[in-house]
Amino acid sequence: MDIQLALDRVTIEDALAIVKETEEYIDLIEVGTSLIKEYGIESVRKIKNAYPHKRVVADIKTIDNAEYEFNLCFDAGADIATVMGVSSIETIKKCLQITNKKQKIVMVDLLNTTENKRNQLFSLSNPNVIFCDHLSKDEQEISGKRNTFSHLDNVWSIRYAVAGGITTDSVDQLVDKKLEIAIIGSAITNSSKPEKTAKRFKELLKGL
Amino acid sequence: MDIQLALDRVTIEDALAIVKETEEYIDLIEVGTSLIKEYGIESVRKIKNAYPHKRVVADIKTIDNAEYEFNLCFDAGADIATVMGVSSIETIKKCLQITNKKQKIVMVDLLNTTENKRNQLFSLSNPNVIFCDHLSKDEQEISGKRNTFSHLDNVWSIRYAVAGGITTDSVDQLVDKKLEIAIIGSAITNSSKPEKTAKRFKELLKGL
Repeated sequence: MDIQLALDRVTIEDALAIVKETEEYIDLIEVGTSLIKEYGIESVRKIKNAYPHKRVVADIKTIDNAEYEFNLCFDAGADIATVMGVSSIETIKKCLQITNKKQKIVMVDLLNTTENKRNQLFSLSNPNVIFCDHLSKDEQEISGKRNTFSHLDNVWSIRYAVAGGITTDSVDQLVDKKLEIAIIGSAITNSSKPEKTAKRFKELLKGL
Repeated sequence: MDIQLALDRVTIEDALAIVKETEEYIDLIEVGTSLIKEYGIESVRKIKNAYPHKRVVADIKTIDNAEYEFNLCFDAGADIATVMGVSSIETIKKCLQITNKKQKIVMVDLLNTTENKRNQLFSLSNPNVIFCDHLSKDEQEISGKRNTFSHLDNVWSIRYAVAGGITTDSVDQLVDKKLEIAIIGSAITNSSKPEKTAKRFKELLKGL
């Protein structure tokens, strides 16, 4: 299973410093929504320029204006851009269209989607689409870290990632889930020893 | 009824030029999502600094990480910040909390919300909350400009705005709706004569 390091609520410089420390153990770099909204698309460009060999995810969380936003991400060097699953189906389809045209990847963030909407979205699955199960930061702050991933038991035949509240204590529950990517943010970025923590995650997820 | 000029898909400099031309006829300036995502929160700061006497709306479209994003907007000088109605209720409540604390306004964007969710959101109504009926850009591109606002007939006792696809031809339909704000974007910004078009909107909405 790949590790996607989510960089949020830091400066671009601090983000680059964290990647420098952890790059050996991470597979994808996520330029978090907060970085994009605070510093603009320049955040994606700078991080991709510094790590051209890593896959860079622009967590732009598109919910409308799909063509403009997705072109912005891909033109800045992103390999993957995110769209909210709660968007209108027109927005999602436009993202898929741009993504296919540019031979990139779209990550569909399932935050707060209904089961009906998820089924509608899964029917759009193709090799350029990764779905992302996501527990929001704001929900984590209320309910604490999540301790179950049992809802992911039936994930198969589609590309799937999981994000939100994953710690070194809970990550073993991802074993046997057919996930492609574990998205890890504050457990690494707020760690007193990011390199050591990233290495620990890599060991725990090795071979999965 | 007030006019909120939505600035999207332009540079900060072009946005400032459009405001300069139209400021006599507009009441609120919206720093569009595309400006924030392309240029960062600096876009809000620069536009508020240039027009300190106008109410500035940061269309940040928060869907998670509410405290960080709302503080970002208000600290940059925004009078109003937007949150997506499709967010988790935890995110919405956090936005209200920050907004009340800072004595600002939150605009809840109802894009793609269900009737159930809207009723849940309306129950959170207070004088610092404006709800925004919103037809997305991506839906407009598929279905064309909207020609009916009849679903707004029952808007009362809450603060309400309407956005998406409003033209000088359709704006008369907003008469008798109990709306506070008409959000107008490309009908002005893409007009060959923005000043003249803004003036026309102001005349049509006068006294409403």
